[in-house]
Amino acid sequence: MKLTILGSFSAYPSFKGFTTSQVLEYSGKSFLIDCGEGTQIQLRKNKIKFNSIEDIFISHLHGDHYFGLPGLILTFNLLGREKPLNIFGPKGIKEIITSLMKAGKTWTNYKLNFIELSSIKPVVIFNKNNLSVTTIPLYHGIYTNGFLFRKKASSHKLIVSKVMDFGIDKTQFSGIKLGKDGVTEKGDIIKNIKLVEPLNPDITYAFCSDTIFNLNITKQLMDCDLLYHESTFLKKDENFATKTFHSTAEQAAIIAKNSNVKKLILGHFSSRYNDLELFLDEAKTVFNNCELALENKSFVF
Amino acid sequence: MKLTILGSFSAYPSFKGFTTSQVLEYSGKSFLIDCGEGTQIQLRKNKIKFNSIEDIFISHLHGDHYFGLPGLILTFNLLGREKPLNIFGPKGIKEIITSLMKAGKTWTNYKLNFIELSSIKPVVIFNKNNLSVTTIPLYHGIYTNGFLFRKKASSHKLIVSKVMDFGIDKTQFSGIKLGKDGVTEKGDIIKNIKLVEPLNPDITYAFCSDTIFNLNITKQLMDCDLLYHESTFLKKDENFATKTFHSTAEQAAIIAKNSNVKKLILGHFSSRYNDLELFLDEAKTVFNNCELALENKSFVF
Repeated sequence: MKLTILGSFSAYPSFKGFTTSQVLEYSGKSFLIDCGEGTQIQLRKNKIKFNSIEDIFISHLHGDHYFGLPGLILTFNLLGREKPLNIFGPKGIKEIITSLMKAGKTWTNYKLNFIELSSIKPVVIFNKNNLSVTTIPLYHGIYTNGFLFRKKASSHKLIVSKVMDFGIDKTQFSGIKLGKDGVTEKGDIIKNIKLVEPLNPDITYAFCSDTIFNLNITKQLMDCDLLYHESTFLKKDENFATKTFHSTAEQAAIIAKNSNVKKLILGHFSSRYNDLELFLDEAKTVFNNCELALENKSFVF
Repeated sequence: MKLTILGSFSAYPSFKGFTTSQVLEYSGKSFLIDCGEGTQIQLRKNKIKFNSIEDIFISHLHGDHYFGLPGLILTFNLLGREKPLNIFGPKGIKEIITSLMKAGKTWTNYKLNFIELSSIKPVVIFNKNNLSVTTIPLYHGIYTNGFLFRKKASSHKLIVSKVMDFGIDKTQFSGIKLGKDGVTEKGDIIKNIKLVEPLNPDITYAFCSDTIFNLNITKQLMDCDLLYHESTFLKKDENFATKTFHSTAEQAAIIAKNSNVKKLILGHFSSRYNDLELFLDEAKTVFNNCELALENKSFVF
């Protein structure tokens, strides 16, 4: 899986960078996560094929997380898109998008599916081709979800040479793939582990933006391969963080540590800070395997 | 007056450039005309002070002309704006903007005034500090206005030395400024023209985007100092222009010629063309004083 950061500043796009948007690439598909103003410019810059995007996940309805969406939807249309587009986002997003299209008398020639979210508990909202997406309910003053992407371990793969060496009949293959032992023609039992390649474990990416510091979410984040957690502020401005339902770099690191994730990436920086390295320094005092989610940077995991 | 082009491509922002937005600067104020996605980035790039913008004019509700507006309104708020903001645009714009703010539970701390337009005849919508703005009804499939900015000739300025030479009494000054003749102490009448500096004529800028080719608008554009007229297509694609209620470069030049304007600038280019000079070449066969409205370019007039 490859995650590319299209924008990682909070509040508004500026010289410093674009607002929140990311692309997760897996198996030829691109999953767009949030869509701040200018996302379509960033998609082009990062050479993400527009047609590889079939699913867009919007965390919440603050403008810096979706004001690039109406334009992107219309651009897809102008580029001749035919395949459907699925938009997962808070209840209300359908009305917003359709009212903008109505005002412009502009309709899409492709099918636009809205999957509106309103549950305050985790819900599996996507499950296709070994990839599932589960909401991570966040607390941010307005209805907000993070998203947990899980690439599931594929089924066991036979080691063909071994199976043939043992002279195991084809009729047993599907059972062996599901974990059963094999039986030779002579009746000897061959342990499953000798006949199949080791399973790749699940690979997981958790996107958590925006949220107040909330240890409850660690249950869902446990052992994640990669965690993006917002860190709008530094510890010295923790009072602002709490007041605006955001987190500090230190708090993001505490979440990472308590969730035992492999790697943490920080983003959603307030533009009040000129030196982003301060976020990294602060987080690393708590959790060492940490990087900044800088614009146009990719993480392969 | 100084006009700066923030974006001049049609349909969607891309590597080639941003969509329609312009700033007209006059007397310390910045008038924003249309506000495509990414306008706030372009405002910063062109060093336009956010606080100098008090009035925004939106031609129509196609996304490439206002999808940067919701974000800009919220950015003003985040930057601590206190003074009111006036938004002139088609009926419906208020509901769109307020519904976006409602969804995000985000309200402005400054006053947001919407002046919704629905007349299909020219209307004076702004008149302050010697500057007036009149709508130019355009035909574009949905309700659309161009805008005619007129900096009015200031009142007559006394030539102080002359007035004193003739020994004309102070009590006559206000009358002379309004065009009256002067009377000396001896009763001689001194023609007004001898006592005042020549009047600067009106200075006018006409913004016409988007529109099908329509000679009716030349009545309003007559003798303009500067005309921006959309030229989405080249003549070879005139059928597309007509079908989509747009104009070609040649048609824009015909409008300029028939309106006897001083200078024409072309914009709203379709991204299908790689060489924008072709627009200029085509227009110049009809009207010579013509330039491309290229991004980040300014016109002083």
